[in-house]
Amino acid sequence: MIDSQGIAPVDIAAAQRARLRIDALTKPPGSLGRIESLAVQLAAICGHIPARPYTSKAVVVGAADHGVAVEGVSAYPREVTSQMVEAFLAGHAAVNAFARVVSADVYVADFGVIDPPLPRKGLLGVSVRGGTRNLAREAALTSAEVGSALSAGARVFQTIIEFKDYDVIALGDMGIANSTSAAAMVAAFCGATPECVVGRGTGIDDPTLRLKTEIVRQALQRVEAGDWRSVAREVGGLEIVGLAGTILAAARHHLPVILDGFIVSAAALLASEISRNVPGYCIAAHLSTEPGHRIALESLKLSPLLSLDMRLGEATGAVLALPLVEAATRMISEMKSFDEAGVSSRSI
Amino acid sequence: MIDSQGIAPVDIAAAQRARLRIDALTKPPGSLGRIESLAVQLAAICGHIPARPYTSKAVVVGAADHGVAVEGVSAYPREVTSQMVEAFLAGHAAVNAFARVVSADVYVADFGVIDPPLPRKGLLGVSVRGGTRNLAREAALTSAEVGSALSAGARVFQTIIEFKDYDVIALGDMGIANSTSAAAMVAAFCGATPECVVGRGTGIDDPTLRLKTEIVRQALQRVEAGDWRSVAREVGGLEIVGLAGTILAAARHHLPVILDGFIVSAAALLASEISRNVPGYCIAAHLSTEPGHRIALESLKLSPLLSLDMRLGEATGAVLALPLVEAATRMISEMKSFDEAGVSSRSI
Repeated sequence: MIDSQGIAPVDIAAAQRARLRIDALTKPPGSLGRIESLAVQLAAICGHIPARPYTSKAVVVGAADHGVAVEGVSAYPREVTSQMVEAFLAGHAAVNAFARVVSADVYVADFGVIDPPLPRKGLLGVSVRGGTRNLAREAALTSAEVGSALSAGARVFQTIIEFKDYDVIALGDMGIANSTSAAAMVAAFCGATPECVVGRGTGIDDPTLRLKTEIVRQALQRVEAGDWRSVAREVGGLEIVGLAGTILAAARHHLPVILDGFIVSAAALLASEISRNVPGYCIAAHLSTEPGHRIALESLKLSPLLSLDMRLGEATGAVLALPLVEAATRMISEMKSFDEAGVSSRSI
Repeated sequence: MIDSQGIAPVDIAAAQRARLRIDALTKPPGSLGRIESLAVQLAAICGHIPARPYTSKAVVVGAADHGVAVEGVSAYPREVTSQMVEAFLAGHAAVNAFARVVSADVYVADFGVIDPPLPRKGLLGVSVRGGTRNLAREAALTSAEVGSALSAGARVFQTIIEFKDYDVIALGDMGIANSTSAAAMVAAFCGATPECVVGRGTGIDDPTLRLKTEIVRQALQRVEAGDWRSVAREVGGLEIVGLAGTILAAARHHLPVILDGFIVSAAALLASEISRNVPGYCIAAHLSTEPGHRIALESLKLSPLLSLDMRLGEATGAVLALPLVEAATRMISEMKSFDEAGVSSRSI
């Protein structure tokens, strides 16, 4: 049952018990739709019917730089990665604003920012190296660096869960040019063409889109299909591999993981290549406008909760799904059944 | 500009100022999608860029009984209306569980429950009469009762806004058989056939669905097309007309109204027949699985924020949209611009 990564399949019996309880609550069966299926999944993840609301929420933004940024594949200069990390730590960015809606704690995991931030509250310094190599020209990472990034991601999880007993963890990303790396990873894992997975990221123009697509196509020629180590090494990003490590650790710990957009879906694909039990622990927060995101989610067999035409990253989409997770746990732990509430059940 | 109902069009100039501010924030332009357009609409509604997050939230569940319940058009017996009102006031129902996620205050407005609840905290007693007449056989309401229900809805708004300075109000419904009334109203206002707007409500079987459709078809023969008074009188529900009054009052007060599902959309259609400026103040929380809901929203030119396969009512969908409203106001009031944050803007 438990695989070589120490990850068990999610608990089907707990899911069935949750379904029975939900169907007894004071509402027509099925009438809360996705909130009901979310509660069932949460029961499967933790192995029992949640007995209290999930109010303790962590957000981890994995950050790193990308050597491929020198090719001009992003609408923003490379230094924006570290500038935005500063903004996250100062609480000025979109993810901070959204996290305050649900009182979630925001952490930044520095998996490899070139200009590293100074140690301070909320920063998890687990840098493997200052950015990847340029995947347009060579392998982005060595095998040792891939292993280090996975370990760094696990360490991030251990650190925050020892700090506080979180109920749920939302993952996001920051890294100028990381949608180039993610596109190559998604193409390799899902067998999709570069044209299908390469998008406009932060908002590039047509010539840059063609350049980015061509870079992904070239880089994929070096990738051994079906070998996750080769994918991570040749076209991986430090924050993407790092977040895969965090996902694996969360699954091992039976904690639900809320996936943000396209970049985090690449991390989830990598994690699920390493352990087939991973997708059961993952909840897709939203469907981004980045075209490869749908392909990645279909491959993971995950259906997004939200579709708000967002494409920022930073975990902004994941954070907006946290109220739905709390709502699902409040439904199952706080609502009364027809019997308990003295309400008449169906007459026909 | 201000119409005979005392309702002004939403403020386009404020919307434009909000758009400029949003485009200067530290994120690629447009990358927060629907959250950005929501913030723009909120600025248009209140007439300025929201300067602080909308954290003060009211939920009003309009409740009433329906004479047509005797025809057996619902899967639940009539007494469930008052039983669920008790559950709302005790805090045991789905809307209460969801409201606790965002610390929203839940009110129940009794517009016409046959077994009225005893006065207590959270109950707004504005009953016009104990349920409507059976719309399958006669006019559901008199003209005077329609007027009283509209006034009752306005009184509900005044009461809660005097109690607390709410930033936003979410509206929902409770009333066994009210989807029959709502279907007839939506058909009349949108020019749709009964088959297109009549759905399974709480979960009726095929014969009941046919009966319900036939009842709606028959009742519509008494309705004068294009006359909202005739629609409300012949096929209206007390909570639906009442909620229309609440919507009109909120629009008059420049407060955003979050619409729940199908039943509340019928109230919004009625309110927008009374004042064409109403839809600008309305935010469609979600798309219900009830087939007529899409038709109503299209007629109102509103695009739902969520699509979670829900069909419960009680304001459960509206409440789940409240975190998005708060997120939009936090984005525009708390995020820094590129200049303010010292982040490099676009290089291409």
